[in-house]
Amino acid sequence: MDRLARERSDLERMARTRPESKLARNFSLTFVLFFVGGVSWILGYQYPRDVDPSSTLPLSATKPPQFKLSPAHLEAAWADFVDIVGEHNVSTVEDDVKQHATSEWSSYQSDPAKTPFCVVYPSSTEEVAAIMKVCHVRRIPVVGYSGGTSLEGHFAPTRGGICIDFGRNMDKVLALHKADLDVVVQPGVGWESLNEQLADDNLFFPPDPGPGAQIGGMIGTGCSGTNAYRYGTMREWVLSLTVVLADGTVIKTRQRPRKSSAGYDLTRLFVGSEGTLGLVTEATLKLCVRPAAESVAVASFPSIRHAADCVARVVGDGIPVAAVEILDDDQMRFINAAGATSRQWREAPTLFFKFTGTDRGVKEQVEIVRQLSRRAGGQSFDFARDKTEQGELWSARKEALWSTMAQRRPGDHVWTGDVAVPMSRLPDIIEESKKDMKASGLTSSIVGHVGDGNFHMILVYSDAERRLAEDCVHRMVKRAVEMEGTVTGEHGVGLVKRDYLPHELGETTVDAMRRIKAAFDPLCLLNCDKVVRVEKPAKGEVAEW
Amino acid sequence: MDRLARERSDLERMARTRPESKLARNFSLTFVLFFVGGVSWILGYQYPRDVDPSSTLPLSATKPPQFKLSPAHLEAAWADFVDIVGEHNVSTVEDDVKQHATSEWSSYQSDPAKTPFCVVYPSSTEEVAAIMKVCHVRRIPVVGYSGGTSLEGHFAPTRGGICIDFGRNMDKVLALHKADLDVVVQPGVGWESLNEQLADDNLFFPPDPGPGAQIGGMIGTGCSGTNAYRYGTMREWVLSLTVVLADGTVIKTRQRPRKSSAGYDLTRLFVGSEGTLGLVTEATLKLCVRPAAESVAVASFPSIRHAADCVARVVGDGIPVAAVEILDDDQMRFINAAGATSRQWREAPTLFFKFTGTDRGVKEQVEIVRQLSRRAGGQSFDFARDKTEQGELWSARKEALWSTMAQRRPGDHVWTGDVAVPMSRLPDIIEESKKDMKASGLTSSIVGHVGDGNFHMILVYSDAERRLAEDCVHRMVKRAVEMEGTVTGEHGVGLVKRDYLPHELGETTVDAMRRIKAAFDPLCLLNCDKVVRVEKPAKGEVAEW
Repeated sequence: MDRLARERSDLERMARTRPESKLARNFSLTFVLFFVGGVSWILGYQYPRDVDPSSTLPLSATKPPQFKLSPAHLEAAWADFVDIVGEHNVSTVEDDVKQHATSEWSSYQSDPAKTPFCVVYPSSTEEVAAIMKVCHVRRIPVVGYSGGTSLEGHFAPTRGGICIDFGRNMDKVLALHKADLDVVVQPGVGWESLNEQLADDNLFFPPDPGPGAQIGGMIGTGCSGTNAYRYGTMREWVLSLTVVLADGTVIKTRQRPRKSSAGYDLTRLFVGSEGTLGLVTEATLKLCVRPAAESVAVASFPSIRHAADCVARVVGDGIPVAAVEILDDDQMRFINAAGATSRQWREAPTLFFKFTGTDRGVKEQVEIVRQLSRRAGGQSFDFARDKTEQGELWSARKEALWSTMAQRRPGDHVWTGDVAVPMSRLPDIIEESKKDMKASGLTSSIVGHVGDGNFHMILVYSDAERRLAEDCVHRMVKRAVEMEGTVTGEHGVGLVKRDYLPHELGETTVDAMRRIKAAFDPLCLLNCDKVVRVEKPAKGEVAEW
Repeated sequence: MDRLARERSDLERMARTRPESKLARNFSLTFVLFFVGGVSWILGYQYPRDVDPSSTLPLSATKPPQFKLSPAHLEAAWADFVDIVGEHNVSTVEDDVKQHATSEWSSYQSDPAKTPFCVVYPSSTEEVAAIMKVCHVRRIPVVGYSGGTSLEGHFAPTRGGICIDFGRNMDKVLALHKADLDVVVQPGVGWESLNEQLADDNLFFPPDPGPGAQIGGMIGTGCSGTNAYRYGTMREWVLSLTVVLADGTVIKTRQRPRKSSAGYDLTRLFVGSEGTLGLVTEATLKLCVRPAAESVAVASFPSIRHAADCVARVVGDGIPVAAVEILDDDQMRFINAAGATSRQWREAPTLFFKFTGTDRGVKEQVEIVRQLSRRAGGQSFDFARDKTEQGELWSARKEALWSTMAQRRPGDHVWTGDVAVPMSRLPDIIEESKKDMKASGLTSSIVGHVGDGNFHMILVYSDAERRLAEDCVHRMVKRAVEMEGTVTGEHGVGLVKRDYLPHELGETTVDAMRRIKAAFDPLCLLNCDKVVRVEKPAKGEVAEW
């Protein structure tokens, strides 16, 4: 019995004590894991968007976006696109996709490895929404495209994926409301052809960026031009937008009244967002009645500073000129050299004025500006007596870019960069930038929307001089920021100026912009890497300030 | 041995089989829970913001915000505020807090139970940031306050919490850059006193809302006024904002150039956001040089439609008038009855024109408008020959609101509601709304910024007539939306018009606005419940459309 009793007691211990204590330990573990799992569940799922209570999204808190770009996956997406728009509206032709990745105007050098897989040409908002739904489910990045005239790499793809081009099938004026002074257009309408159509009704659309630009891209960059001094920029002339968001949701930002204070200004949020927040598929634009009378005058000065003084007098006296542009002495020389205008010009800093209003009002403005120009040290003052002379005088302003391009040697490129500063600093920045450019030895000219403190530096450079040009632009941008200005007045940041934004605006402001990007496009499908970074840069990727 | 063997086998089974199978089951459960918990953890924590790939935030996906408002907690917060701004700048005096919850102008009836716990008067951006950090950690809702002149319940608290009033200590003009045509101000600066200060330098700030309004609130509502036709609204005159976000982060939206296309237009996003996205602590405003010459003309017409026809002719001929206002026959009658102007007026629909420009230009404009007015059936046309006559003619426009208020019987209230429609629909909506108001039996008048398609209906009502007034406004709003207009042209939605937004803009557009609100203010601390709902309404809470 002794052995039996011992064995029995051992077995009883085994049966009760040891296994139970293991069980107890496992229960504790179970409980802990259950608790941790449950709490995670609650925090992770029940408050998926409230988990981060902060108001901004610093770069350090981002995760690299994940795309699916295997050849088989893209082939399958291609079939989806063909179902939506038809085979003739999906192109994988090499020339097509290459053309949609860069242009000879762009100061950004595109990465050929990131060329889009295909170009899709939709015909309607519904088709764009269907395409975006496919890309959203399939995690395929998208770049929107219209005129392709932007300068800073706005439509350069950085992640492969697809390009959606609005220029082929979405180029219609949908409705003109003459009595309401508005027009509804598709994104592929060019501003020049729009104005030709509007002229029949004595109307016009003021924003006047580079030739070839289309409404979609003009909205994307928040463009302007010579008319901005009197009429404001693109932001002032868009009433409402129909936008397809990253997940295919369609929104219309506003109805058609000229004025509204109902809710957040989504319209203005999309203007200048460079295709990163949504794809514009329809725009309602404000229009202007053509002024009763118009004239042009040209005045030359011994220096940029004299010209700027003249502008300050005109503005200070409250003379409502419609536009005032400055061309520097180099620019005037290039115009003479190109011989594209019917007359020769004094090769000195020159102001170009536009006047609009009633007949007598315009004549009086011209007379006042003539006097102010003389008092500011003006050396010449010509004004147009009729329509023909108006065209002749303004022709020099029109030929500025082309005549600088005519200075290119074979293989040369042209770089058009813009910055803007508070008006009083314009002579300083122009003078310093001109000195800097002369020192670099590059051929260059300056054309400015002087009434807005905004100017363009046009540089001619060879492949070997690329770095010289880059450095010149970099220093001009830095100068502008230090003068309380902006890295771009009307071209947008694209890829070339994106990393300047924290210097101009501060890190927290860029973090607030990144928060908006993440809110509307959490998967970063739309023109990824533009406006704000969504992924930490590699070491050395960002130029030193 | 048989018994022993059986007993042994039983014990062995106990020791190995039964407990082990229990163990195995518990391990499975542990594993499943661990797995589920772990995956939740990864999804919930590793991708806290990427978990929801959609671009909008529907109301159905929101969770009610959670605030901490126990008396002990608020007492502790009070001590924090005193540490930041000093005891004299934190008020819990009943009259103070009540005054910050509503006004006699407001068409919204505030809930006395939601009156703020205290009013805090900060002196700087840093203090506001510190206050917001306290409220963020403590989960206390906040309403920003400046002039308190808004009409639709913008500053009515819906959740208790605190009020931050900028009017006492943040009412300074910080810097005037005359040559750059801009001024840096704090939110508590009134637009009238600002213009008095600017007059010395021959400058002015165009937006002209109701008397007493301050810059902070003017930014919040995206206001405008009689100058909007020529100069645009508040959105066009704000260059840059310093904003304290919900978590206390400070951002500055822009530097000082007149033009920029660098990054998202955060400035315009905050203008009109009614204090729901951030608290403005500093604003850089664009300024205008006072025009060289100015005049005023007044023309009366047999009907609203005749007056509208006159405006269409003036606009259609491209005459750059500075302002054009309409007052209806009732309004003109009230002005005569009040006797506050030095002359008697024809009691008919009347247009008030402002002209600016050069001396000769203004005279020519007046002459052209006189002819157009006669051709449109005008019955009288008076224009000012000098400054005194200008003041006299414009006085009727200035007295519009006050003279309607003079119609009140004891205990009556006044309700000023505004809508805007595409210009061509203005005669329709004014005629229909007038007919509707006459039928209701309420005393009312109409004053309109006719060049913008925007007008105000001013209603006089007693407590007993509240419902009648509400219904009149409701029908006017519905009419505006059906005419492709907006529920508010310049007053903002506040609480009274918030639930109209989905009708005007569509659900998905409001969902996109809600996404922005959640991105910047995930805890809904800033003016909670304004612009967009963040919590499903109770049954019957929203009026039928």
